[in-house]
Amino acid sequence: MDYLSKRAKKIKPYVAGMQPSGNIIKLNTNENPYPPSDKLKDALNSMDISNLRLYPKTDGGQARIAAAELNGVKTKNIFCANGSDEAIALAFYAFFEDVLLMPEITYSFYPVWADLFEIKFKRVKMNGDLSVNIKGLFNSSGGVVLANPNAPTGIALDLNQIEEILKNNDKVVLIDEAYFGFGADSALPLMEKYKNLLVARTLSKTHSGAGLRFGYIIGSQELISGLERVRDSFNSYPTDTISQILAENALSDIDYTEKIARKVCAAREILSGELKKLGFSVCPSSANFVFVKHESLSAVKIYDELIKRDIYVRHFNQPKISEYLRITVGTEEQTKELINSLKQIITQ
Amino acid sequence: MDYLSKRAKKIKPYVAGMQPSGNIIKLNTNENPYPPSDKLKDALNSMDISNLRLYPKTDGGQARIAAAELNGVKTKNIFCANGSDEAIALAFYAFFEDVLLMPEITYSFYPVWADLFEIKFKRVKMNGDLSVNIKGLFNSSGGVVLANPNAPTGIALDLNQIEEILKNNDKVVLIDEAYFGFGADSALPLMEKYKNLLVARTLSKTHSGAGLRFGYIIGSQELISGLERVRDSFNSYPTDTISQILAENALSDIDYTEKIARKVCAAREILSGELKKLGFSVCPSSANFVFVKHESLSAVKIYDELIKRDIYVRHFNQPKISEYLRITVGTEEQTKELINSLKQIITQ
Repeated sequence: MDYLSKRAKKIKPYVAGMQPSGNIIKLNTNENPYPPSDKLKDALNSMDISNLRLYPKTDGGQARIAAAELNGVKTKNIFCANGSDEAIALAFYAFFEDVLLMPEITYSFYPVWADLFEIKFKRVKMNGDLSVNIKGLFNSSGGVVLANPNAPTGIALDLNQIEEILKNNDKVVLIDEAYFGFGADSALPLMEKYKNLLVARTLSKTHSGAGLRFGYIIGSQELISGLERVRDSFNSYPTDTISQILAENALSDIDYTEKIARKVCAAREILSGELKKLGFSVCPSSANFVFVKHESLSAVKIYDELIKRDIYVRHFNQPKISEYLRITVGTEEQTKELINSLKQIITQ
Repeated sequence: MDYLSKRAKKIKPYVAGMQPSGNIIKLNTNENPYPPSDKLKDALNSMDISNLRLYPKTDGGQARIAAAELNGVKTKNIFCANGSDEAIALAFYAFFEDVLLMPEITYSFYPVWADLFEIKFKRVKMNGDLSVNIKGLFNSSGGVVLANPNAPTGIALDLNQIEEILKNNDKVVLIDEAYFGFGADSALPLMEKYKNLLVARTLSKTHSGAGLRFGYIIGSQELISGLERVRDSFNSYPTDTISQILAENALSDIDYTEKIARKVCAAREILSGELKKLGFSVCPSSANFVFVKHESLSAVKIYDELIKRDIYVRHFNQPKISEYLRITVGTEEQTKELINSLKQIITQ
């Protein structure tokens, strides 16, 4: 007896990066190498656990207010969720209909969400340098989803290019800024002018809070109400009491966030330079990872050799990018160990 | 310009109970009146926040293991989610197809999830005493969902009645045991025999952890794999690092859980007796709430008068139950204040 529904049989689940633990160098899921702000520790220590008997605020509570302040918008322009993945998935349901456009190479959860909700979509071919072909994203009757900087390439569009896309679309354009803070332009300044713009953010990257599961979407009140409508048809309490308190603290410690982002960006430039010396071509990255291809060794070979040395990077077995590796920018020491290992692998 | 998708326009969101705060008596969303186990405080104090930079375990980690141990099943028989609401919503997607059966009076999120995923469903009329008509749930070609004890009546089916339903259904039968621990039989002993049985549990009620957002479903490995398939097409990391740790602690403190459940059940019997003296009929409850109807005063009148006295209970403006109120069992002091207020209202 097969109990699965017909549509559950059809979907092809997203495959997340491995989450190995122990004494390894983990550069495979783009986590921030630095811990979250010390303000989180203080908040944890002063927490009253008796409050946990009560339901949390449905809208993200104080974290929603902090997200609004950080981005200079009103609270009603913020939709909080259990990670930006959840926020974006609900946006797919709320706003996208046939035919949704997305770049051919992009965050691999987008086609999964489209399939989950049975939304037809079209993948738009990349430019030769793996950058996004913005003209290909014009005139969608079913919306556009786009990561900026793009995943897994790390290549960013600038504000003018994003505006070109917005100018040429009537339906919702969702810009996934998961890697905001590492150098790319944000689409946020365009929000006043384009009521069809949604910007997604996460605490998993710049704020070092992947374990918190907290993300949000910024948009017009009309679009945020649409998201709330879908949330309240799925799970009224998507973010828990403690994550709301910790997210507020992470979002409001701007100095710390910027300090660690600067360190990551500096390390990325050093890493990129070293990789080029070793014969890698490196996509220009505005994220906390680099997307690289070696001139002679295969990606799978390098990937396997790195795992033997307890270093985990990410490989996507997909057309056009199967010779690339995505490497998260780690600490200075991790970068040194990675480069030393790559030297061994390349010269062995 | 209207940006909502056609199906997002069609859905009718669930309306959660109000979450007022301040110096009030909150008996409207069935929270446990007692705080969670002290083990949670100890766990919070010894937490290393630097781990929050990393993604959590996708499967619930140590909380999944604790849930398996508590219920005497294997880890592979447990599916963890961001609240049992999320777990059940994903089960709707994974297993239910036209026509799903549910009792006419039941947890009001079930029809919302069915609509969300465009699953046709049929509401089966209740028996005259508001108990579930089990024969009406026989021979569904599209599955059955059922809360036991039922919401918002609190009336429970016994193990034989649940087995009758299982015997007479080929598709998945999902028993939502959100209020397990307050006196009802669990369907769990039937799991070995019926591979189509799923049992949902939450930490929000018996474990005093509504703010934690942690729930789980118990089932055969085949059914759990189906749920994982849908989870991985929606949100790979539904439960966060801290909630996993705290949920483990809540689940493993069995003595405390049983102690506060006994207190709640004792208070429920006192409350039921007092309400009957005041002219209420009280449905026999196996939950941490009572569902009551007054012999002369209207439910809305009582509801409004209680709010004037800062006491919040729940009223459902639905056919057949619009003259009932659902009252959460509070502490001894809250019960006294409630009864005193009701005396005033009834005699005024």
